[in-house]
Amino acid sequence: MTPDEVRARGCGPTSGLAPGFAQANLIAVPEDWAYDVLLFTQRNPKPCPVLDVTDAGGHRTVLAPDADLRTAIPRYRVWRDGELVDEPGDATPFWRDDLVSFLIGCSFTFEGALVEAGVPLRHVDQERNVSMFVTNRECRAAGRMHGPMVVSQRWIPHALVDTARRVSGLMPAVHGAPVHVGDPAELGIADLSAPDFGEAVVPEEGDVPVFWACGVTPQAALMASKPPFAITHAPGHMFVTDVPDSTYRVG
Amino acid sequence: MTPDEVRARGCGPTSGLAPGFAQANLIAVPEDWAYDVLLFTQRNPKPCPVLDVTDAGGHRTVLAPDADLRTAIPRYRVWRDGELVDEPGDATPFWRDDLVSFLIGCSFTFEGALVEAGVPLRHVDQERNVSMFVTNRECRAAGRMHGPMVVSQRWIPHALVDTARRVSGLMPAVHGAPVHVGDPAELGIADLSAPDFGEAVVPEEGDVPVFWACGVTPQAALMASKPPFAITHAPGHMFVTDVPDSTYRVG
Repeated sequence: MTPDEVRARGCGPTSGLAPGFAQANLIAVPEDWAYDVLLFTQRNPKPCPVLDVTDAGGHRTVLAPDADLRTAIPRYRVWRDGELVDEPGDATPFWRDDLVSFLIGCSFTFEGALVEAGVPLRHVDQERNVSMFVTNRECRAAGRMHGPMVVSQRWIPHALVDTARRVSGLMPAVHGAPVHVGDPAELGIADLSAPDFGEAVVPEEGDVPVFWACGVTPQAALMASKPPFAITHAPGHMFVTDVPDSTYRVG
Repeated sequence: MTPDEVRARGCGPTSGLAPGFAQANLIAVPEDWAYDVLLFTQRNPKPCPVLDVTDAGGHRTVLAPDADLRTAIPRYRVWRDGELVDEPGDATPFWRDDLVSFLIGCSFTFEGALVEAGVPLRHVDQERNVSMFVTNRECRAAGRMHGPMVVSQRWIPHALVDTARRVSGLMPAVHGAPVHVGDPAELGIADLSAPDFGEAVVPEEGDVPVFWACGVTPQAALMASKPPFAITHAPGHMFVTDVPDSTYRVG
């Protein structure tokens, strides 16, 4: 499928879809909150690497000029005062003229490079959404925005952990190198079979849990910071851009 | 010299000083302009990679917790309505409680890595400030902030251009890979011996001009956008941080 086909079609999680194109997280907030959100992303670049910011009321992005941000994502989340109130497939009825949209890099973007380097993706093989967890690491606050870091977790064969670290490390705009490898308790995660977002994924023998900073972090910050209104993507259901993955690879 | 010693002492351009530590550009604007400046940096990450942003009125940064941003830079520039009105060695008399300070990555930060890789630095050898030029490339505007991209230019031996590209490319937070190599006319630069900022540097035989996006770009945007007030560093006279260069190296 092309990015346009993914955006046109209702579907589930987007990991593995439109291979070769970058994917992005969405967080849209009223203009009055935009500075706090932008500063929060700047102060927390590992979980929140910003790829584009729209002007207030805009629903177009340079990342995919023909796409409509109100409809291009397979599933949205609507938030009021930090509470999840709806999960529509079309955000148009909820959109407001004062919304500023932030598109934030997604680790699905380096998955193609992982596969190329011989690193298997258990969640794709098992046709599941990636596992995501709220951690015990607090982000650096910005104005009214604060909250814990969220991570995505992948099972990686022990012998390929260094490869995964190196390959993802060359893509800092889409979360870069892992923030942690091994014992989940160090991130305050009790049970890898009970993710906070996404689905549990079954490891194979010799697999190690590897954790990357995740673009769902702003959603955890919404819950903690309670802005009056926000629209985001649903975790794992990303905005597929027209930008080739390789654009975000350095070196 | 240590970073602390450089910050304590009045000196000239900081290229080559406190080797091993990252240097940063400063732009401080009234709070009312902070969103436009932050969005401008996000939309123009090659010239404006943000390393830290203070809260309004703050004069401390996580990049060097003991340093005072009002005095730590060897020479400042004070701007009113887009006009340069003063170049003091101490910004304290000009500081305001509503100023938000942006610390932006500086290409001096990858110069250590260039030297390690065997790339000579002509401006350091000649004890001159690096050459900087306003280009014909317009930055992506953000609210009231707009202006052309500024570049730093270094003479690099032809055989070492690829090395310089690779080494700097691994440091995207301090401008990353060059934006242009070769003919200065393609950037609208008429005369390499007449830089807009810094000093002219004499090439050696076989040297090629190589251009990196430059953190003086926000100063060109101040001139074009005319906010009522701003304080910046003077080009080449940087804020020396306590952060090791290697922090900004990926891969």
